[in-house]
Amino acid sequence: MSNSTRCAACKSLRRRCSEDCALAPYFPANNPQRFACVHRIYGASNVTKILEQLPIHARATTVDSMTFEASSRIQDPVYGCTQIIFKLQRQIVHAQYEIAKVQAELALHSAQHQMQQQNHTTNYQDQNQYYQAAFEQEEFHFDQ
Amino acid sequence: MSNSTRCAACKSLRRRCSEDCALAPYFPANNPQRFACVHRIYGASNVTKILEQLPIHARATTVDSMTFEASSRIQDPVYGCTQIIFKLQRQIVHAQYEIAKVQAELALHSAQHQMQQQNHTTNYQDQNQYYQAAFEQEEFHFDQ
Repeated sequence: MSNSTRCAACKSLRRRCSEDCALAPYFPANNPQRFACVHRIYGASNVTKILEQLPIHARATTVDSMTFEASSRIQDPVYGCTQIIFKLQRQIVHAQYEIAKVQAELALHSAQHQMQQQNHTTNYQDQNQYYQAAFEQEEFHFDQ
Repeated sequence: MSNSTRCAACKSLRRRCSEDCALAPYFPANNPQRFACVHRIYGASNVTKILEQLPIHARATTVDSMTFEASSRIQDPVYGCTQIIFKLQRQIVHAQYEIAKVQAELALHSAQHQMQQQNHTTNYQDQNQYYQAAFEQEEFHFDQ
């Protein structure tokens, strides 16, 4: 491959980019930042070693995930992308708390509803019994 | 430092472990696996470079998070710890769906409860009006 068509990795490492360069398909010349990021954290030789142990169809995804992790490590050298994991775990704890809260509200609502229905039925039956008794007294009075 | 007290990094790299070895505090000799894992993914020189750019108090956490990422990458060379991020994101989407579902149930319950209360009040008033009208008729009859 001529100098002008070297991949970003070979250009950065000032070497010839061979036809079978393991990095060329994933580090195009027009995105030198992508290789710089991965190289700074893992080093080109480690990336190459990891890629060469994988089937070709899995390599693009591997480079994507390594680029993501490397760029997270550059942004946050102490926590890297584990910071994202902590944040997501906190979000899940919060969401589980929310679910529990709404489920408790629903259970309370349901219990209150049941109690009110029982009260309505009792009041209605009492009222009915009162009026029926009153009518029966009147009827008894008419018969006399 | 004598050969017997070299840190896991210096022992693995077959070098003398100096008093000011940047890796020694984080890679004790009794845990060679920890260094092997980080060295395999990042390389000792990249780890040293990252640590040397950070204040001493932040280095232990940095090595912990890098060890976690490296061991995730060894377990899952394609996704590394981004797989954990995807799983957590899916869990959050599921939890948000659960919250929305329970909130919708609560809203439905609340609306049904309100409708039933209105029906009870209307039935009760109808019943009352019926009996009162009946009584008034009787009274009217007695007066005649």
